Parts: sequence; structure tokens; C-alpha cells
Amino acid sequence: MTKSVSRTFFATKSKIIVVILLVYFLSQGRIKGHAMTMNSSTNSISTEQKNLHPILLAPGPVQLHPEVQKILALPMIHHRTPEFDSILKTVLTDLKHLFQTEQPVFILSSTGSGGMEAVLINVLKPKAKVLAIVSGKFGERWADMAQVFGADVHRLNVPWGESVKPEQVSEFLKANPDTQIVMTQACETSTATTHPIQELSEIVSKTNALFLVDAITALGAFPLPMDEWKIDGLVAGSQKAIMLPTGLSLVSFSQKAWNIIKDNPTPRYYFDLRKEKASNDKGETFFSSNVSLIRALGFVLNDIKSQGLQHLFKTIHRRAEYTRQMASHLGLSIYSQSPSDSVTAYKLPASLDGAKFREYLESQYKVTVMGGQDQLKGLIIRIGHMGYLTDHDLHETTLRIAQALYDFKQNINTENVKVISEQWLKTHDI
Amino acid sequence: MTKSVSRTFFATKSKIIVVILLVYFLSQGRIKGHAMTMNSSTNSISTEQKNLHPILLAPGPVQLHPEVQKILALPMIHHRTPEFDSILKTVLTDLKHLFQTEQPVFILSSTGSGGMEAVLINVLKPKAKVLAIVSGKFGERWADMAQVFGADVHRLNVPWGESVKPEQVSEFLKANPDTQIVMTQACETSTATTHPIQELSEIVSKTNALFLVDAITALGAFPLPMDEWKIDGLVAGSQKAIMLPTGLSLVSFSQKAWNIIKDNPTPRYYFDLRKEKASNDKGETFFSSNVSLIRALGFVLNDIKSQGLQHLFKTIHRRAEYTRQMASHLGLSIYSQSPSDSVTAYKLPASLDGAKFREYLESQYKVTVMGGQDQLKGLIIRIGHMGYLTDHDLHETTLRIAQALYDFKQNINTENVKVISEQWLKTHDI
Repeated sequence: MTKSVSRTFFATKSKIIVVILLVYFLSQGRIKGHAMTMNSSTNSISTEQKNLHPILLAPGPVQLHPEVQKILALPMIHHRTPEFDSILKTVLTDLKHLFQTEQPVFILSSTGSGGMEAVLINVLKPKAKVLAIVSGKFGERWADMAQVFGADVHRLNVPWGESVKPEQVSEFLKANPDTQIVMTQACETSTATTHPIQELSEIVSKTNALFLVDAITALGAFPLPMDEWKIDGLVAGSQKAIMLPTGLSLVSFSQKAWNIIKDNPTPRYYFDLRKEKASNDKGETFFSSNVSLIRALGFVLNDIKSQGLQHLFKTIHRRAEYTRQMASHLGLSIYSQSPSDSVTAYKLPASLDGAKFREYLESQYKVTVMGGQDQLKGLIIRIGHMGYLTDHDLHETTLRIAQALYDFKQNINTENVKVISEQWLKTHDI
Repeated sequence: MTKSVSRTFFATKSKIIVVILLVYFLSQGRIKGHAMTMNSSTNSISTEQKNLHPILLAPGPVQLHPEVQKILALPMIHHRTPEFDSILKTVLTDLKHLFQTEQPVFILSSTGSGGMEAVLINVLKPKAKVLAIVSGKFGERWADMAQVFGADVHRLNVPWGESVKPEQVSEFLKANPDTQIVMTQACETSTATTHPIQELSEIVSKTNALFLVDAITALGAFPLPMDEWKIDGLVAGSQKAIMLPTGLSLVSFSQKAWNIIKDNPTPRYYFDLRKEKASNDKGETFFSSNVSLIRALGFVLNDIKSQGLQHLFKTIHRRAEYTRQMASHLGLSIYSQSPSDSVTAYKLPASLDGAKFREYLESQYKVTVMGGQDQLKGLIIRIGHMGYLTDHDLHETTLRIAQALYDFKQNINTENVKVISEQWLKTHDI
């Protein structure tokens, strides 16, 4: 009898444990469906495609850390409470670590483009001469913005996929000593291309001009030490290497920039960072705080501090290296002549309808990457390296791209790709 | 034997069900700690205060629907995907229902103040004559904003807590037929006071001026039918009656306003709604979409549609009525002479240090309400009626305020308050 009761109890207990684990893992989203396995002889997918787990590998928004997802689901608290004050205080301090600056960093409720506007209009004096490096869609956007706000904008057009030559900037500044602002992307997201920020900063910092850097697809992905490199205005976006949903931009200014900001008459209210600075100094935000995202930002910044910024850069560099190495095995090439660690653009074969291919990859293989924009439409796919990603995600992405290329009648040995990918990941630690 | 197995199976099954429910409710945050029970003779709290479940009753941010919390925790998806396109399409349609308009409604990644700026600068021509109704902190903010952007601002100052007299507006417009904009809050959050929007609109719509309404603490809380009342610019905020975290503002314009917007030369980029309109017409957003909040907005708008807008207004009106009715039993009075259904301001006794009282309520009784701002600092507490609230939350809030007043040596019979509160809620259905 005792034995029988005990057995029944044990059976009950195991079932309960199974149920707890099931509910827990389901709630964590850990049971995501199956991986893809391929048969070399047939190139066929043995697991049903509809069971594949979705992979988001865009250059933002990115996959979220499970802990971030949990924090986003927390009950709301008010932003004028001791609990939130304490979170904000830590976040404002940790942001300086991320930006590698002694200057205050500001949290704006806006997308990255709002942050670009904030950085620009706080330092842009009416009719100021601006040199805008334009090498893609976001360079164009920032130059357009400056023009809208009445600047005398000179566009330094760089062929898409190429990096600006620093001597072009120094020549312009020599010929135009009245230039007040030089601005560029650290990584031009639309072409997955970096610009030589340190060299450019070296040149601009010797003049009266301010050097503004759009680091939306850059900050947290590769080194951009703001103070050391003498960057005057820096902007980051939450849905990139900061690993949060879209909704926050983060901006900071050098002392050289603050000297302009404090008396700059350009009309601004929502993006007037003098107001935000005064409030931050008192431990609060000027407008309502985005409580959900700032709480999650607290986790991310702490996580970055724990692992170390350099370790984060190495992690992302390894993903970029992996992706670049896989290109030739996929029969593809790298589009950019100065590839970024935050995002890689694969140039697609001319025989391929790139837009259809990208859509097919998403609908059939649940891999979301981005296509080309404007003049690059249909010619490239862009794969992001930021966010919460596992080696399994990287490997699966390569496999699914290989399979999709095969489906599009490309000459590709998917089994070979699989072995090479596995091998690379195994032999390349951070 | 069969019977025994069946019994064991049943016992196991019940335990499993109990466990499932427990895990489910814990994951939902439904088990929030204890309620407060009071002893009339001693006015002492029999349940430990530290076990009290927190109640957020500010005029925004508000408590979130459990389903919203779950949606916020979902894995990220990209905003340029068929999945998101379909969500956005539904949301943009349902927003028209919420705004009661045939005009497009726009989603901005910003706080409410960003939305106020967007509504203003899209229609504000350089040096335009503006009549700003100023009856509290947010009226001041909007007037300041107009001034920053170069308007010729005339402030119609209304004593705090009072409602503007429509004849003052019509007199101003008669004397100043060149007025281009009249702007007001529907509810001035800082004083919990409404203005007579329908009457004002009636007056302004007969002139060439545009009528702009800040409905951040109003839209979704009480009727503001945009088209019927001929409102020209309307702005709402996500963390108020829209029941989401802070981070989105929602704006819409009449055709009369669009006639100005399309050629208005006032510099704007992030808040240039011509760009957003063109993108929305193609089924996307111009900037990166705030995927998390827009997904959750989809749920809220669908929920509002299901229950009916009028039902939502009645629900919130009942909460406001309850709160107003409880005032005298708490020995308090209503501050505003034109109380809003979205938020109620209790005037505190002169003998009470209001700032300390509010903090005490929060730290000791886990009820977050807001205090007064600027000239009302320490004189009032403001209790919001928007968001996901149960009758239990309302009742508990009254009880805890009563207990806190007692702790502050106010002459109050807490047991009496308890009975009256219970009775009111029982006898007043929606």
C-alpha cells in the first residue's frame, strides 16, 4: 500500500513537473519549432518548412533578449516615482559607458531619425554651412533635413558602397573655413558601408566645425569612443545594437558642441536638449519617460557592462566575419568596399530577381533580412549582426539562404555549405 | 481496480489543473498580494502593508491590460513584412473609429508633447497669430511651443481649475479676424479640468482660424467626435486612455487644416506629416515603426471596437463619478470647477502637507497618484480614471487614501468609507 501510494505520488509529481516545464518554456518562447536539415542528394528539406523557427536578421529591429521580453511585459509604473528615478539614474550613468564619454547622454522618445534631427538642430545655426557626406539613403536623409532647416548644405557624394576619402573632407574644409558642421554616417545602413570616423574626426576637430556622426547602425556594434575620437554629436537607435524595440534614440554632444547649443536660436522644443539636460540634472526626464523601454535599456546596459564593451564588439565582429566568409560558399559576393561589422550586404547574382528572392526567403524559410533600397533595390540582401543571436541562428540563416538559392536554380551544393558553416563556427571562438 | 486507477487519474488531473492555473495566473500577474482590510475600532491595517498590491492611478501612464503586457513580450518582427503591414493597415483604420473621423490618423514615435508639436508646426505659418487658451501647465507648454516657433501668441489666461468662457474666444476672434489658430486642452491634466470643446469649435469653425485640441488626457476617455465637432487638429497619447506604455502620439487633421499643411513653409522633418501621409497611403510608416507598441495598439483598438466607444466612455465616467462621490466621505473636496472624466483632483485640507501625503500613500500603501504641479504643488492629488482598472482597484484606492488620511491625523471614519464605497460600486452599474 505504502509503495503503491508512493508510486502514484511520484507519477503525479513527474507529470506536474513536466507541465510546469512546458508552461514555463512556452511562456519563454523557447520552443520555437524545428531546425532545417538538408539531404545532400536531393537538396530537399526534411523538416516541414512551416515548423521552422523565424529568424530576424535585419539591420534593426533585431531579435530581443528573453529578459528584455520579460521586462517589457512588467506591470506599468509611473515615471515620477523613486523606483523609476533609481532606474533612470543608473541608465543615464551606464549610457556614458556605452558612448565612451564623460558628457551627458540623452534618451529621446523617437526613432533614430528623430535623434538625427535632435543632434542636428541643436547645433545648426540659421543658414550655417554644412558638409554632408552622402553615400546612401541615410546620408541623403540627413542632408535633406539640414536643407529643410535652412542650412547651406554641400553634399559630398560618395559612390554607394564606397567609403569617403578623408582628403576630400580636408580639402573642402581648407577651401571653406566657414564650415560649421561636417556630418556623416558611421555605417551607412543602406549600403552596409562604414566611413573612417577616427580619421575624419582628426581632420574636423582641428577646425571650428563640429563633427556629427549618425551611429544608429553602429554604436554598440563597433568602437566609436566619442571623447577619445573627438566626436561632437553622436546618435544611436534603440532597435539596433542596443537590442530593444524601436522607440528610443540616444544622443550626446561634446563640450565644443554645447558652446553652440546653449545660445543657438534655431527654433526647437521637443528636441531642445537644453530642457532635457536641466531635467536630467534633477534626476528626471523633461517629457513623460518611456518607462517600458528605459527599464529594458537598464537591463541591456548592465549586460553590456558585465560582458564588457570590447567583448560585445568581438561578438558582433565574429558574426560579421562569419557572414562575410560564407558569401563565396553561397556563390555570392560582398557588396560594400568597406564592409561594416553591424550589417553585411550580399550582392545577388544578376540572374536573380532580388526582391522576389528576399520575399521567398521570408515566406518559405522564415528568415527576415532586408533588401536593397532605392538604386540597390533587388540587387542586394542585407543581413544584420546586432541583437540577441545564437550560433544556431547564424548557421540556420546560411542554410536557409543556401536552400533558397538552390530553389532559385542557383548552382549550389547545400550540403557543402552546411559542413563549412558548422566547421567555421566550431573553430572560431570569440 | 478500474475505479482506483480512475480516482488516481482524477487526483493527478486536478493537481495538474491547479498547477497550470497557478503558473498561468502568476505569469499574468493576477496574484498581486493582499487587499487591505481595516478594523473600525482601531483603524489598523490587519494585512501587512508590504503585501499590498501596487495600484497605479495616475492620469497616465496607466495600468496595462494583461493582454497588452503579453503582446509587448512577443518576439520582434520587422516593420517591412507582410505580417506587420497587415497589423498597420488594421490599426490605421481602427484609429479613425477612435478619433471619430474620416481623415487619416497618424502614429508618431514620440511622447504626447511631440504630438502637440507635430499638430502645431504642420499648420503654423511663420508669424501666424495664435490664440492659446492657458489654464494650466500643458496650456502653458503649448503656448510656449508656439512662441518658440515664431508665432504671434496671445494667451487667454484662465484661472487654474476653471473652464474657459466661450464668449471670451468669440470676442477675441471678432477683434482679431486675422487669427490663424485657436488652441486648447480638452482636459488640462494639471488641474483635471475640461474645456467646452463643442462650443469652442462651433465658434472657431465659423472663422478662418483652425481649432487645435490637445486631447492627450481626453481622447478615448470622453466624447470628442472630431468630424462632427469640426476639430481641425487633434492629438492623443498612448499612455492615457489608449492604455499603452508611453511612446506613441496619435494625431489627425481636418481637410481645412490639410489645405494649410500642404504648402506650409514652416521647417519640419521628423514631424512633417506630409511625408507620413504619403507613406501611410502606401501601407507603411515613413520612419521605422514602433512595432511593439503598434501591435499592442492593435489589440486595444480592437477591444474598444468590441465593447463600443460609448461603453468605454461610460466605464470611465462611472470611475470618475465614483471618485467624485467619495470625496466628501474622505473629508475632501473636488478642486476643479469643471471636473474631467479622465482625471479627478482632490483638494487636500490646508492642514496637510500634500507632497508628503502623496509620497506616504505611495511608499506605505502602494497607491501611485499624482500631486499638483507648479502653483498647485502640495495642494491637490490627481487620480486617473483611464487604463485597465477593476472595481477592486477603485475600492482599494479609496480605502488606502482613507487610511493614509487617518494616519495623517485627519478626522475620518475609515470603516464608514469602506461601507459607502462598497455600496456605491454595488449599486452603480455601467
